[in-house]
Amino acid sequence: MTQPRYAYLGPSGTFTEAALLAMVDADEVEAVPMIDVPAALAAVRSGDVEFAVVAIENTVEGGVTATLDTLSRGEPLVILGEVVLPVSFELAVRPGTALADVTAVSAHSHGLNQCRRWLAETLPGAVQIAASSNAAAAEELAAGVAGFEAALAPPGLAARLGLEVLETGVADNAHAATRFVKIGRPAAVPPATGADKTTLSVCLPDDRAGALLAMLEQFAARGVNLSRIESRPRSDRPGEYSFSVDALAHIDEPRMAEALVGLKRTNPVVIFLGSYPAATGYPTPVASGTSEEDFADARAWVQGLRSGRH
Amino acid sequence: MTQPRYAYLGPSGTFTEAALLAMVDADEVEAVPMIDVPAALAAVRSGDVEFAVVAIENTVEGGVTATLDTLSRGEPLVILGEVVLPVSFELAVRPGTALADVTAVSAHSHGLNQCRRWLAETLPGAVQIAASSNAAAAEELAAGVAGFEAALAPPGLAARLGLEVLETGVADNAHAATRFVKIGRPAAVPPATGADKTTLSVCLPDDRAGALLAMLEQFAARGVNLSRIESRPRSDRPGEYSFSVDALAHIDEPRMAEALVGLKRTNPVVIFLGSYPAATGYPTPVASGTSEEDFADARAWVQGLRSGRH
Amino acid sequence: MTQPRYAYLGPSGTFTEAALLAMVDADEVEAVPMIDVPAALAAVRSGDVEFAVVAIENTVEGGVTATLDTLSRGEPLVILGEVVLPVSFELAVRPGTALADVTAVSAHSHGLNQCRRWLAETLPGAVQIAASSNAAAAEELAAGVAGFEAALAPPGLAARLGLEVLETGVADNAHAATRFVKIGRPAAVPPATGADKTTLSVCLPDDRAGALLAMLEQFAARGVNLSRIESRPRSDRPGEYSFSVDALAHIDEPRMAEALVGLKRTNPVVIFLGSYPAATGYPTPVASGTSEEDFADARAWVQGLRSGRH
Amino acid sequence: MTQPRYAYLGPSGTFTEAALLAMVDADEVEAVPMIDVPAALAAVRSGDVEFAVVAIENTVEGGVTATLDTLSRGEPLVILGEVVLPVSFELAVRPGTALADVTAVSAHSHGLNQCRRWLAETLPGAVQIAASSNAAAAEELAAGVAGFEAALAPPGLAARLGLEVLETGVADNAHAATRFVKIGRPAAVPPATGADKTTLSVCLPDDRAGALLAMLEQFAARGVNLSRIESRPRSDRPGEYSFSVDALAHIDEPRMAEALVGLKRTNPVVIFLGSYPAATGYPTPVASGTSEEDFADARAWVQGLRSGRH
Repeated sequence: MTQPRYAYLGPSGTFTEAALLAMVDADEVEAVPMIDVPAALAAVRSGDVEFAVVAIENTVEGGVTATLDTLSRGEPLVILGEVVLPVSFELAVRPGTALADVTAVSAHSHGLNQCRRWLAETLPGAVQIAASSNAAAAEELAAGVAGFEAALAPPGLAARLGLEVLETGVADNAHAATRFVKIGRPAAVPPATGADKTTLSVCLPDDRAGALLAMLEQFAARGVNLSRIESRPRSDRPGEYSFSVDALAHIDEPRMAEALVGLKRTNPVVIFLGSYPAATGYPTPVASGTSEEDFADARAWVQGLRSGRH
Repeated sequence: MTQPRYAYLGPSGTFTEAALLAMVDADEVEAVPMIDVPAALAAVRSGDVEFAVVAIENTVEGGVTATLDTLSRGEPLVILGEVVLPVSFELAVRPGTALADVTAVSAHSHGLNQCRRWLAETLPGAVQIAASSNAAAAEELAAGVAGFEAALAPPGLAARLGLEVLETGVADNAHAATRFVKIGRPAAVPPATGADKTTLSVCLPDDRAGALLAMLEQFAARGVNLSRIESRPRSDRPGEYSFSVDALAHIDEPRMAEALVGLKRTNPVVIFLGSYPAATGYPTPVASGTSEEDFADARAWVQGLRSGRH
Repeated sequence: MTQPRYAYLGPSGTFTEAALLAMVDADEVEAVPMIDVPAALAAVRSGDVEFAVVAIENTVEGGVTATLDTLSRGEPLVILGEVVLPVSFELAVRPGTALADVTAVSAHSHGLNQCRRWLAETLPGAVQIAASSNAAAAEELAAGVAGFEAALAPPGLAARLGLEVLETGVADNAHAATRFVKIGRPAAVPPATGADKTTLSVCLPDDRAGALLAMLEQFAARGVNLSRIESRPRSDRPGEYSFSVDALAHIDEPRMAEALVGLKRTNPVVIFLGSYPAATGYPTPVASGTSEEDFADARAWVQGLRSGRH
Repeated sequence: MTQPRYAYLGPSGTFTEAALLAMVDADEVEAVPMIDVPAALAAVRSGDVEFAVVAIENTVEGGVTATLDTLSRGEPLVILGEVVLPVSFELAVRPGTALADVTAVSAHSHGLNQCRRWLAETLPGAVQIAASSNAAAAEELAAGVAGFEAALAPPGLAARLGLEVLETGVADNAHAATRFVKIGRPAAVPPATGADKTTLSVCLPDDRAGALLAMLEQFAARGVNLSRIESRPRSDRPGEYSFSVDALAHIDEPRMAEALVGLKRTNPVVIFLGSYPAATGYPTPVASGTSEEDFADARAWVQGLRSGRH
């Protein structure tokens, strides 16, 4: 039997691979390294792979715009799951290298940026070389062909490559974390778990002060909370905005389904980017009057009224 | 075949009878006069009659509280239709009586009240005798047994009874009109016509400034307008209120059905008092995104999303 | 020194007089009986009297439309206070008259109406004579010139007139009560007491589903509750509505003042009908963030920001 | 006379310097290069400089989280102005170098990231060296001491340094633009221009579905539009969010001042980050009933009511 194929930002050893492995059993999938997020998503769209794992939000850098934008444009894709990983690095060197020997250090540009202050203090004179990924830098170093003496590597990678670790927990911000999502082509939505998110992109009908309010009323009228909202300038229509939102409910719950019906009716564009289990796993609070049973009871009541049963 | 029986505020000749005749063909129903509104509604509840026609709103006197309250309490009843009649009277006398001969005048207490100024100016010295109905006063006069020389009678009644009309168009307020409704036991709701009203009684969950707002958001989120709203102190819970509202939509329209589902879920008491054609007959405006088709499209979209069709 | 003059629905002995006496000390005012509510209000407008006491709401009959409409049109008038009185009657007769002797009974048309069921059961054959006021009927009876043997009189009046009381507590509805208000020409508003009402009449800018919501948001955004709301068809513009509302706050409170500013800015007509102590005397709850101090602090903060103090 | 000192992300030649020069006349200020955004803002807080110019939003990368977070925490700072610059690069080399000669290319990590695809296609084998700034890379190249043959440089810098330009308009996304802001310590707010923004950070009182709605109602009730909203996880309180918003109005406009009062009253934390002219320069639409004059008229009306002038 063929194993499902997962595209990810390669090569082996990246944070994205760590996220992938936090989601699935390595033995049961074929992991396919890709050069960047758009390439990974394109591979899903083309059918070359079944799934992709990509970063979508970073507590330090904010929304990963490329991912959100690439998801919203083109053939439909959906989020099927998420995982949140803390972001910190190990400073990896070839055995025998001391900190004082390091004249150049390499990592992905994001990695270098997330350790900017640490590098400025610890390796003030070192050249910073941007690699295509954090893992690529470490691999090059391990292969003995690098033009640098040190790499910022995701935890664990140095050991696998036979490198030495001079420092662990390297990061400018101790709270740095990245949210990764599993992406697939639309199919049956993963079943509701009681702790789910629904990700949407919505363009408002106009830019009145009331239009955003009216959009949010569609959620509030059904008791659905948002865990994220970001306005995004629409590149196709200067001066207009779309809104990227995460709602704390699942499309199979009536409160979310009704909110979606309301959004769809009253906004020119609504893109559904999936309902999936939230990484926190905390059961979503269901306000009084908004449970599946509350909806079923109220609908049965209306149905009864129509035929005279009060 | 037995004809349907209609209770109304009798006797023959009342405004309520006029309203009844404006709604149905006299030859096809059996009109059953009743002493007052509660009696008429009780007759429907008990099954003695199929329907009742009662006054529910008066542009001069405001809501006819007794009707609204009697409808809301006890066995379910629903409004099946409405008609609005202007309120003005004829001053009826026995043939040969002149205005100067009138020492006493009779009508229902509401009738006397609606002509208070006119009576004060035109018949300043006349005793005002309250009859059980406007028609009863005129009948008594026609029968020659009355203790008064004149009656304020609904238009047309004097002629039928062989009385003379000294004045027509008698009313303190030229815009006075009364809304009458046809009441029945719950059964299949009359079909939507495109110009319908739904009457509801709603008790709010608490008296926060936001509770009324949240209730109205259930309408606004589906684009449903209200044509009447009245807060009513709850006799069973001092300091709390219920709200009597007329919404401009029909329970068979999805926008109204969804609003009802939302109201039912989020308020402790929602009493449905019927969906029925509005007297005006003006087609109700349907805002963009709130038509039956808009709902059907949006629901089909959500249904598709659930199985992966985007 | 001249005493202030109060117009009321006369003659002496009416419920309105009882309301007047519940508001002021009889020795300190000159009570001026008037024939009806419009006449009482006209007397205030013309300056013939300083104040009027009129009925404005009845728990059985609903809003007293004539009062609300007369207040809203013409020279500005304001409500200065309110009192709520239970409505029940005494059946008064001349000494020696027995129930069986009663062939005719008199009261104001509203009084007859509020006792309709009781009269139908207790005095089924008696003629009902509408008097210009309940008190007038009792006085006529006491004077020995009446064409009836019994009158429905406000409590206490019979004793003052030397009449006998055959029944007390006469009323179809045990909860019947009437709200009376003291009316005057605009002057400095009575000081806030912590348990106040503000009465307004508002015409909405259009009849969108959202217009009523937007109007109520002006209250909710400042944490102001409503204790009454009634839509009223506008006689001058068919199909449009005005709203009569009682808000639980005083114009001298910033939350009410700001709500008024918001209403005035966004609605074509806002009529202020007074801020006055609520009859209940219960202190109005002040939600978190809406007290006078909260407003003062927030304004001081904004003022500071403008000049660079954060 | 001493010139005002402006901190910016140095060295000379960065996009940030270009933004600074777009805001002020080079001859009238002393530009002080800093190593990064936190250092630039710290210099303002400490008084070492009067102002800083920093990037705050990037259409490709989204909000510049570091800037927003650093602004919100610590001693108050405010935004005094903004400018938006398109982001594209020139590929700069030493005179005589051909594309085929390039084995390594340097730029700031953000610059490398914004040209990732272009580099992968045009210089697939080249090592990418992250510099402390785009300008630093170009300067090193010009000085003849670089370990790379090409630099991605902001437009114009190559010419100033005597370098040759092999390609202009280098950028993966043709719409890429960055918003830069001028930061200072709080002082009198710059005067309103009719095309202004106010930047705020707000923490909601709780995470009910209605809390975000209630926050936005404070804007809508005064007719204030938002041009940006982003939820931000609060690092100090897991699971809670703050909201970063740009509102299209100036604190000196009453509609904005009132919205601020409302926000301050009803939310636990509101941080004012300045009112300043919007880069677009388009006059902000002022909805009916929300102009300065509308507020003044309505307030005068309320003030009049309090003393009896209607």
